[in-house]
Amino acid sequence: MRQVCFGIDIGGTTVKLGLVSSEGDLLEKREFSTQRELSAAFDSIAANMRQVLDSFPDAMCIGAGVGVPGPVLNQSLVRGCVNLGWGDVDVARELGSRAGMPVRVANDANLAALGELWQGGGKGCRNLVLFTVGTGIGGGVICDGRIVSGATGGGGEVGHLPMPFHTEWQCSCGKYGCLEVTASATGIIRAAREFSPFKEMEKVTAKDVYDAAAAGDENAKRITEEAGAALGTAAAILGCVVNPEVILLGGGVSAAGRALLDPVEAAFEKNVFPPCREVRFALAQLGNNAGIFGGAALFFTQSV
Amino acid sequence: MRQVCFGIDIGGTTVKLGLVSSEGDLLEKREFSTQRELSAAFDSIAANMRQVLDSFPDAMCIGAGVGVPGPVLNQSLVRGCVNLGWGDVDVARELGSRAGMPVRVANDANLAALGELWQGGGKGCRNLVLFTVGTGIGGGVICDGRIVSGATGGGGEVGHLPMPFHTEWQCSCGKYGCLEVTASATGIIRAAREFSPFKEMEKVTAKDVYDAAAAGDENAKRITEEAGAALGTAAAILGCVVNPEVILLGGGVSAAGRALLDPVEAAFEKNVFPPCREVRFALAQLGNNAGIFGGAALFFTQSV
Repeated sequence: MRQVCFGIDIGGTTVKLGLVSSEGDLLEKREFSTQRELSAAFDSIAANMRQVLDSFPDAMCIGAGVGVPGPVLNQSLVRGCVNLGWGDVDVARELGSRAGMPVRVANDANLAALGELWQGGGKGCRNLVLFTVGTGIGGGVICDGRIVSGATGGGGEVGHLPMPFHTEWQCSCGKYGCLEVTASATGIIRAAREFSPFKEMEKVTAKDVYDAAAAGDENAKRITEEAGAALGTAAAILGCVVNPEVILLGGGVSAAGRALLDPVEAAFEKNVFPPCREVRFALAQLGNNAGIFGGAALFFTQSV
Repeated sequence: MRQVCFGIDIGGTTVKLGLVSSEGDLLEKREFSTQRELSAAFDSIAANMRQVLDSFPDAMCIGAGVGVPGPVLNQSLVRGCVNLGWGDVDVARELGSRAGMPVRVANDANLAALGELWQGGGKGCRNLVLFTVGTGIGGGVICDGRIVSGATGGGGEVGHLPMPFHTEWQCSCGKYGCLEVTASATGIIRAAREFSPFKEMEKVTAKDVYDAAAAGDENAKRITEEAGAALGTAAAILGCVVNPEVILLGGGVSAAGRALLDPVEAAFEKNVFPPCREVRFALAQLGNNAGIFGGAALFFTQSV
């Protein structure tokens, strides 16, 4: 009988739910609105799980791996999700009792890293770091095949590494000089806004800044290179802490491709502890499905 | 029958060998010269193991956990130890065949961190970071009870974090601005040497600088505070990467006690990601025996 597993990514707006085979095939995917009320949210997810399973009568479902945008303890207890309006919620119990199967839970950004390890840019590796560079910077750290979630579920918060760039800029977390104030799309846009033509534009995107850099704009070049230098220095920090085989860059800004990777790799080379230098940099491959694959990987690749 | 385990710390000069009970009692400890020749080194260790076990006829020895000053793969293969003059050596095989028991191997600094987790300053915890601050800075990272050794055995190299202090000073690793160029005893002495009275002294120790700071010397205060700020910022970095419950400071400089801990904690508070703030700072407790306890912990607390 074919083994399958659910990967479920609960976001502030939508739930992404996928049924994944043990070989890593995404058999079915659904996306539906996240219900505001807690019971209703889990009822709706469990109902969707049942409907999906009805289409696969020959499959044996071994569990559901769930990602949530908050800190998670013991693959079970979510300690507050601002985006979802949740306090402490035992997701493994709430969803497990409704769905009638084992449920394991992880932080969504960390789970994306595990998904990339299993079926994405880190396939075949055991040690990986993911930087998801978008509006903010999230990510995850995988050591020896397992998510680093830490004592209070705050592991892998790579966007909040204290960095020596823009130390006068305050981060949404309250600190100053976090990696994401310099290297996120928000940071790149903020830096660009100080210069023409960006300060006169109604709306600026990180892509605008990368495009201007490619066209030879000196300020845009300096800004994108600084963002890359910050990310590459952060990658070097991760290099000597966890010594990964692969470091992946994902999120919207990673669409810049080599224009992002080149300065990152240069700063990494300059700053990494030499014995930890053997790292492959690559772009994340699974996009919005990373969390679904990560959820399935919680069952297919991990013992508790 | 009482279960026991060897913890063995192979250094460049001496081998420290201890027999440890499953309750964490150090039943016997020996220290003897490290033989230069590889076969002789393992013969001598195995002979000492047999002699020690002869004194405990009622004990069942379940294995030997060994620390070496180099990168280790798969708890077995040492990939070169400069201090020992070793190339690639399969320590688990070489010592295991001579001693007739399972052998697991780890980097010595990482193993000290595991020892502190099991029986020292991190007792009862699952997530810990150790900074061993002496001539250089070593240490280790423990996530969910396991050593973070990384893809090539270079995990937990916290002394080589790139830091925004003394970025013009070259580290022994070849890079510039590593944590240890600022915060090790060597770094503290180097900084102090630029000022009287230290530049006129024949020999300066880190203790001299801490003593002068305590006596009100402004330069010494600035230097020791900077070393603490660098360590505290590094601790904040580790905080948001691995979210430990406890961060321990060991090594010779930790004799400074609160004079070391206070600026470290202040810089940590300022730089750590708020959700990762719940960290206890403490001094390491096991001193030179940390590696012995760590070796035993490889068997008593870890599944492979």
